[in-house]
Amino acid sequence: MLAGVRAGRPRAVGRLISLVEDGSDALPAIMAALAPDTGRAFVLGVTGPPGAGKSTTVTALVRALRERGERVGVLAVDPTSPFTGGALLGDRVRMQEHALDDEVLIRSMATRGHLGGLAVAAPQALRVFDAAGCATVVVETVGVGQSEVDVAAAADATVVLLAPGMGDGVQAAKAGILEIGDVFVVNKADRDGAQPLVRELRSMVALSERPPEAWKPPVLTTVASEGTGVPELLDALDRFRAHQAASGDQARRRLGRARREVEGLALAALRDRLRRQGSAALDALAGAVSDGSTDPYAAAAELLRRLPPGPTTTA
Amino acid sequence: MLAGVRAGRPRAVGRLISLVEDGSDALPAIMAALAPDTGRAFVLGVTGPPGAGKSTTVTALVRALRERGERVGVLAVDPTSPFTGGALLGDRVRMQEHALDDEVLIRSMATRGHLGGLAVAAPQALRVFDAAGCATVVVETVGVGQSEVDVAAAADATVVLLAPGMGDGVQAAKAGILEIGDVFVVNKADRDGAQPLVRELRSMVALSERPPEAWKPPVLTTVASEGTGVPELLDALDRFRAHQAASGDQARRRLGRARREVEGLALAALRDRLRRQGSAALDALAGAVSDGSTDPYAAAAELLRRLPPGPTTTA
Repeated sequence: MLAGVRAGRPRAVGRLISLVEDGSDALPAIMAALAPDTGRAFVLGVTGPPGAGKSTTVTALVRALRERGERVGVLAVDPTSPFTGGALLGDRVRMQEHALDDEVLIRSMATRGHLGGLAVAAPQALRVFDAAGCATVVVETVGVGQSEVDVAAAADATVVLLAPGMGDGVQAAKAGILEIGDVFVVNKADRDGAQPLVRELRSMVALSERPPEAWKPPVLTTVASEGTGVPELLDALDRFRAHQAASGDQARRRLGRARREVEGLALAALRDRLRRQGSAALDALAGAVSDGSTDPYAAAAELLRRLPPGPTTTA
Repeated sequence: MLAGVRAGRPRAVGRLISLVEDGSDALPAIMAALAPDTGRAFVLGVTGPPGAGKSTTVTALVRALRERGERVGVLAVDPTSPFTGGALLGDRVRMQEHALDDEVLIRSMATRGHLGGLAVAAPQALRVFDAAGCATVVVETVGVGQSEVDVAAAADATVVLLAPGMGDGVQAAKAGILEIGDVFVVNKADRDGAQPLVRELRSMVALSERPPEAWKPPVLTTVASEGTGVPELLDALDRFRAHQAASGDQARRRLGRARREVEGLALAALRDRLRRQGSAALDALAGAVSDGSTDPYAAAAELLRRLPPGPTTTA
């Protein structure tokens, strides 16, 4: 399987990402073996509210990257909600354009499930695409939950995609959007309300305080369904990438990403230890909290006191 | 402040919940002092997708509970997303109906922020309302992120609110909705498409497997803006509550809630210890992961090895 992953074979990549999702015990050994093959991919986050046209934009971006001859990975993070679960899966069908191209590796990942959730699994899936020789890995997330936003924000570059008709949302969401976007795109730019949205975003960027040498996020327009504006988006991303490399910001961002990744795995291992070794103690303490004879903070402290230091198992 | 909380004074309750949001060091002592005053409130989760009419429904429910003479708490959990942050805050204004009633304690809580996030802060906020003598605490969440859904699912009873016009979403979301709803409500029942949605939900409930003595979630209709159907909703919740008390399910659910609460606080304390004591080690290990000289699993294991067992500090 490792040889298959290194060669970028879709089936091997898919199998390894399934192991990542399941939190397999084999992962530490596998990731150790793949470590020398990683660190080369450029991770591009694409996020935005439902309806902004993320999947269409990602499809168009992948098409443009394929024209450069790159191998491309796509990690589509499905929303966690029982209410929105269906919509994105429907959109995924549009990616069929690339379904027969072996140089495009596509994977959906749900945020529910194994220990540590998305925060642990997504970075490992990115490593797999990286080791598989993808020059660019696009992470598509629906911006409806914090965990998805966190994933996007951990990318080398984050494109925040908006569309006209979001109403007052942008104004209210100012701070959050400014924090994560390296490039802003107003998609569906042929619709009413696109220009006011562009102006609003530009003034938001202009008003935000940043050092003079810092990157100033551009606000672009696209009609992704027709491919309009996509070359300009790629150009902006190339400029951003060059800026980040020259300024050292890319290295700093990657260091931060590695820090969160290691911390997330360590915490998942601690949680695992707590669940395996502290289960009976937890039951008793929960009973005491439930009948009011103790409070949850005292119970948590007691649980930690009873937890044996134990061998370090990574989840 | 503790006396003020016990007396249900809004300002004292608000101040203590602020301490909860900030993750104050004083919380363990405060929660220990309040523990004997807790365990009495009935926690009612209300969740559903944006646009289902949650705030209107909660306002109507609060009005009906106030007519019974109950003190009522409302914890409105704001979505985590930078994209949807604004919409809910707008809705909150409608709660103004109860703003001058000192027997209605209302608090919004964002999911971003302190260590452990919503999973740690929300249960403590519920404890504060409980100690303040609220007979019912309504937790309103937008069903767009897993953490919000988790909070709703941890309630004594969960109302899943839907409205016509959601399209294929319900069908796709079947499993997730069935899992968390004790009572289903189709709001805006005077609109087109309400009856088909009711039928769809009823057949979903009928088809789901459950033991014969288990609670069978009813599917009700409301027009919350006019108060229509709200007495019937309260009746259904009373029946559910009686069923849960008689079957022992309420006690089991509360035990599970206490278990998650204690585990969450213990994990937050471990994370805190990791951050305080392992910061320098983490920097070095993140650097090694970043340049590919080690992998994140090995780095996490090493980080845990270096972590001194240390005194148990609860966050």
